[in-house]
Amino acid sequence: MSHNSFGNLLRFSTWGESHGEAIGCVVDGFPSNIKIDISFIQRRLNLRKPGQSKFTTQRKESDIVKILSGVFDGKSTGAPISLIIFNNDQRTKDYSDIKNKFRPGHADFTYWSKYNNYDYRGGGRSSARETAMRVAAGSLAEILINNSKFKKIKIESAVVQIGNEKIKKNTWDTKIINKNPFFAPDKKIIPIWEKLVLEHRKKGSSLGAIIEVRVKNMPAGLGEPIYQKLDSELSKAIMSINAVKGIEFGEGFNIINQNGLTSSDEMKIDKNKISFMSNNAGGILGGISSGQDIVFRYVVKPTSSVLSKKKTISKNSKNTSISTKGRHDPCVGIRAVPVGIAMTAFVIADLLLINNSKNI
Amino acid sequence: MSHNSFGNLLRFSTWGESHGEAIGCVVDGFPSNIKIDISFIQRRLNLRKPGQSKFTTQRKESDIVKILSGVFDGKSTGAPISLIIFNNDQRTKDYSDIKNKFRPGHADFTYWSKYNNYDYRGGGRSSARETAMRVAAGSLAEILINNSKFKKIKIESAVVQIGNEKIKKNTWDTKIINKNPFFAPDKKIIPIWEKLVLEHRKKGSSLGAIIEVRVKNMPAGLGEPIYQKLDSELSKAIMSINAVKGIEFGEGFNIINQNGLTSSDEMKIDKNKISFMSNNAGGILGGISSGQDIVFRYVVKPTSSVLSKKKTISKNSKNTSISTKGRHDPCVGIRAVPVGIAMTAFVIADLLLINNSKNI
Amino acid sequence: MSHNSFGNLLRFSTWGESHGEAIGCVVDGFPSNIKIDISFIQRRLNLRKPGQSKFTTQRKESDIVKILSGVFDGKSTGAPISLIIFNNDQRTKDYSDIKNKFRPGHADFTYWSKYNNYDYRGGGRSSARETAMRVAAGSLAEILINNSKFKKIKIESAVVQIGNEKIKKNTWDTKIINKNPFFAPDKKIIPIWEKLVLEHRKKGSSLGAIIEVRVKNMPAGLGEPIYQKLDSELSKAIMSINAVKGIEFGEGFNIINQNGLTSSDEMKIDKNKISFMSNNAGGILGGISSGQDIVFRYVVKPTSSVLSKKKTISKNSKNTSISTKGRHDPCVGIRAVPVGIAMTAFVIADLLLINNSKNI
Amino acid sequence: MSHNSFGNLLRFSTWGESHGEAIGCVVDGFPSNIKIDISFIQRRLNLRKPGQSKFTTQRKESDIVKILSGVFDGKSTGAPISLIIFNNDQRTKDYSDIKNKFRPGHADFTYWSKYNNYDYRGGGRSSARETAMRVAAGSLAEILINNSKFKKIKIESAVVQIGNEKIKKNTWDTKIINKNPFFAPDKKIIPIWEKLVLEHRKKGSSLGAIIEVRVKNMPAGLGEPIYQKLDSELSKAIMSINAVKGIEFGEGFNIINQNGLTSSDEMKIDKNKISFMSNNAGGILGGISSGQDIVFRYVVKPTSSVLSKKKTISKNSKNTSISTKGRHDPCVGIRAVPVGIAMTAFVIADLLLINNSKNI
Repeated sequence: MSHNSFGNLLRFSTWGESHGEAIGCVVDGFPSNIKIDISFIQRRLNLRKPGQSKFTTQRKESDIVKILSGVFDGKSTGAPISLIIFNNDQRTKDYSDIKNKFRPGHADFTYWSKYNNYDYRGGGRSSARETAMRVAAGSLAEILINNSKFKKIKIESAVVQIGNEKIKKNTWDTKIINKNPFFAPDKKIIPIWEKLVLEHRKKGSSLGAIIEVRVKNMPAGLGEPIYQKLDSELSKAIMSINAVKGIEFGEGFNIINQNGLTSSDEMKIDKNKISFMSNNAGGILGGISSGQDIVFRYVVKPTSSVLSKKKTISKNSKNTSISTKGRHDPCVGIRAVPVGIAMTAFVIADLLLINNSKNI
Repeated sequence: MSHNSFGNLLRFSTWGESHGEAIGCVVDGFPSNIKIDISFIQRRLNLRKPGQSKFTTQRKESDIVKILSGVFDGKSTGAPISLIIFNNDQRTKDYSDIKNKFRPGHADFTYWSKYNNYDYRGGGRSSARETAMRVAAGSLAEILINNSKFKKIKIESAVVQIGNEKIKKNTWDTKIINKNPFFAPDKKIIPIWEKLVLEHRKKGSSLGAIIEVRVKNMPAGLGEPIYQKLDSELSKAIMSINAVKGIEFGEGFNIINQNGLTSSDEMKIDKNKISFMSNNAGGILGGISSGQDIVFRYVVKPTSSVLSKKKTISKNSKNTSISTKGRHDPCVGIRAVPVGIAMTAFVIADLLLINNSKNI
Repeated sequence: MSHNSFGNLLRFSTWGESHGEAIGCVVDGFPSNIKIDISFIQRRLNLRKPGQSKFTTQRKESDIVKILSGVFDGKSTGAPISLIIFNNDQRTKDYSDIKNKFRPGHADFTYWSKYNNYDYRGGGRSSARETAMRVAAGSLAEILINNSKFKKIKIESAVVQIGNEKIKKNTWDTKIINKNPFFAPDKKIIPIWEKLVLEHRKKGSSLGAIIEVRVKNMPAGLGEPIYQKLDSELSKAIMSINAVKGIEFGEGFNIINQNGLTSSDEMKIDKNKISFMSNNAGGILGGISSGQDIVFRYVVKPTSSVLSKKKTISKNSKNTSISTKGRHDPCVGIRAVPVGIAMTAFVIADLLLINNSKNI
Repeated sequence: MSHNSFGNLLRFSTWGESHGEAIGCVVDGFPSNIKIDISFIQRRLNLRKPGQSKFTTQRKESDIVKILSGVFDGKSTGAPISLIIFNNDQRTKDYSDIKNKFRPGHADFTYWSKYNNYDYRGGGRSSARETAMRVAAGSLAEILINNSKFKKIKIESAVVQIGNEKIKKNTWDTKIINKNPFFAPDKKIIPIWEKLVLEHRKKGSSLGAIIEVRVKNMPAGLGEPIYQKLDSELSKAIMSINAVKGIEFGEGFNIINQNGLTSSDEMKIDKNKISFMSNNAGGILGGISSGQDIVFRYVVKPTSSVLSKKKTISKNSKNTSISTKGRHDPCVGIRAVPVGIAMTAFVIADLLLINNSKNI
């Protein structure tokens, strides 16, 4: 048991605070002799990096990742891989106005209740800064998948709704996702979101987002009932991401609008190939992948840091108010996309190793 | 790592198949010297038991639980508590018509893909029969909570939607939940659901359900960031229940309809008492309980076993069709209610122990 | 974390007390489709069973094992395998003379200190009765090894010393080990031990034993540095057996009598085969098997239950004395032999699965 | 499961190779608000540091430890504590003569067999360099113990035998242990060991050592049967240290020379205080501390690197020979002393937290 670790056979542990000297992670259980391309890890990190468009925070984080162990002559050795990013935007600024107040919607109050000690300079450990190391760990998981016999597995993810504006059905265009600042899979939604996000940014507000993940070319058989089911592990993984408030698979909550005559996915054989006639289940039955695409969605709440005054209390239990000045994400959900991919990759890579182990 | 175990300091492991001789669980890490009232466990099991109304399956399962170890002179000894239920409805019937076919919506195909061996007589390990042992383990967790300094914690759960019919806002009446066959918290919805469920039952169809859980009198500070957050653990727990396809906390997916100016819950001090002015977060901030009620909902898909013919394939890869005769739940979500309570109780009891450990 | 479980990918959990209704274990992570021969498990249990010669306790335990889950049509299903043995020697006798006293050398005092509750009728959970389930679990591990590509692995174990009497060097004869009541590997020692053990038995005393384990045909590469090293896992496993007070590998403590010029095992190639010129290391280097035989020894203290009076205290802190009447093992180390084999088999099978997992 | 992590509720994970850029560890589960004195950690590291006398290797390692996370305003925050030591003795030297040969007694061959990739510049991950981070983690465990209600616990350790020369019975003088280069507890043995070690060093040989650990003021009740027993956890911990080949508790292997009439420790009450009349058990009964001193010993084999030629094979399976030039420890067991203390402290701190958790 280790509160800051994730995974089983393949396992990562993160450490570090947003305003500390560095953040890092250690990936253990990584097989030996796999070529590690650090530029791949860096590219993944760059997707999450803030300050890249006017739709994300203007905070600058250089996010240059470095490998400190576990790789020799360009290949994994089987030893733990230690990754580090030094923080370089640690401005010494004046925190006196927020030091003793709990920011609504943030974890300040709960961390204070639990630990009676926390880094008020930016959330410390509860900051989304921690997710950078998940992306690093997840990109190692991707490298592992890409070097396995299941290298065809492909994890795609896009934002499908911001505020009230959602993409139309069947408009998912993989090619454009990484080419627009919203990770939108649908060209037509881009100008609509641009207008919406800037509008909220201007008035010091923020927006929530719904993100969809699709895993293609999944083999059937991944997932370990009863308590390491694929959907259970993915839910644990995704729900641990900052600001996520819900997750659903396949038709999800919408399945309530169907009945038993329509809800289950029928099967057929066509030219010796097994196929399903729908994918209401999101590619998972009984906690095990069916070979269909894995499909799930999760919702990220609006950024809690806003310019307008909010009522709150102080550490010494007085009524007060707070407003968050400065640089914040008008829709923090956008930058969650690479984090969700990373967690998904890690869950899949871990289950692949577990599955492998049984081939005695 | 143990695929069939759940929990950390407090941990249960289940075993057994729907048509085997018995099912059981072992609860480890249970503190010593706590009075164990087996009739309490039995009452919890009775809530889940099938065959109690015309809205659940007519299958009879006696579900008499027995303690085999870990209790001496009526008190826990600190040793593992082994619980067993002997299966007594193991009719020898003819399975030849389903033996070689995969039932759509069930785990037959994925278990076959993964294990190449499964008990076709009723799903074996993938059967919801397994959840009886979760209820038993969860009731031990409840006993633990009730004997701790947090004995005021109260876990309530009710069905809030069946098919398209949902309860009205603010109609939650705790007292009636266990007094109607739907675990409905709202008297007015009962006749509506009666009609709806019987209608679907008659035509051999089935319905999905949405279930809400509310935990009252939660202490602040439960949950272990970053990867054993309270919401993350609850999601893992609930998503492992058969047929659950989504979970959301507080406002959940609906938070997308708010913005940053309204979404975060403001705080105030009133008569020396800390309070929140709303509960959009569902009582969890940064993965730690805030002291507000924990509120979450999950969706259970319509029972996949229906009378009408569904297309499927056989083990030897031929196109065929199947219909499920006999006794099935017209809305399996109803009987998920006590299972969800059990899993919630277990997560909370486990986190209480972890929290305790830090008081050095 | 689970105090009563052992192993990682392959994992067993035991439950039950010496005077409870039954004892049992659950083996999780066992691959599917492996033929399970229950008579093999029973034969392993019979080796440990008391009451088979005048050199072990005369207590009768029927030890008939039964499989309750995880096996279908004679093969493992991949689901947890639950094993149970019902206790049938639960005589209702008068415990009033020992109920409130701590037996020296036993765990009565420490269990009382820790749990403030224990089953005084025979040690409850601390009784060696628990080891029967280890033998059951270990025999499943043996079945797994025998069905893997490493089926040539062979675990042998024998008693090499009782009291001051030890076997001569190079007298290990595998064939006779299971054919004498001492698990002696050397015919000549048998009459000596017979005399010695009966002598001590007669005067109500008991003897310690040293047991050696040899694993033949080990593949190189098993063991996971740094904290799941093969010797580390074996030590954890063996030291958890009742009454064991020490373990050593290869030359063990005797290596102190060598120096660096002689202590390390030199290597050579002979007819394209790698070999070592000695085995001081006991087949393990850096926590990983080298392909040589694994060799280790452990010491079991003399049975603590003796006829003569020993000074002790009572639960209410008074000076008193106690003597243990009735049936006890004059040398409990003898019956530890099959338990040590079982634990060794389990460690190896678990590490085989972990090793497998890396073959991506 | 994580191969490079140790502990349960309190857990450390190490990473890094002897010739990499840095080594480090992450300690998770450390309670918040405990004052962290980094100079205490550094002092502990200095005890292990090489190059401090002519009886240890002359290799220089600066071993300056730095905290990167988990401490704010001088106190622990409850977040993972990341510790790092940058390696500064990474000489670029010529490894061509050893690059392709397996050093006898070292882990080169087994790492090569397992990973088919390892850092030949000094053992990489298998180097004793890794133990520096255990000392760092262990010193945090000591800080935790010193801030708990069991702050009286005191872990002492000394070398009791080098080669054939052992200390006399009852000569343990705690005060001198850290004041001589051998961690000897007996003044009279020092000149004898000086002569012996220099003699072996001169001829390019090396010696083994036996180390004893004594834990004073232990509370009764620590240890979690059946598979997290105190002796089982300590054995796992100690056996994971490089070059350790055996461990024994209390009388250990020597108990074979006693019988049941003498072997168990009798108890008495004297002035309302419970005491034992001997300590053959080494302070542990049934895997739980009895309140007596914990006493155990472990043996460290002679350093495998010696000047004289040893037969070995090359990676391409040819017969060859090797001799290790340069700086090595003439008795590596000496520097194991602080490592053994660290592992012991960690096991105890972890069990204290587990024990705490049960006080519901």
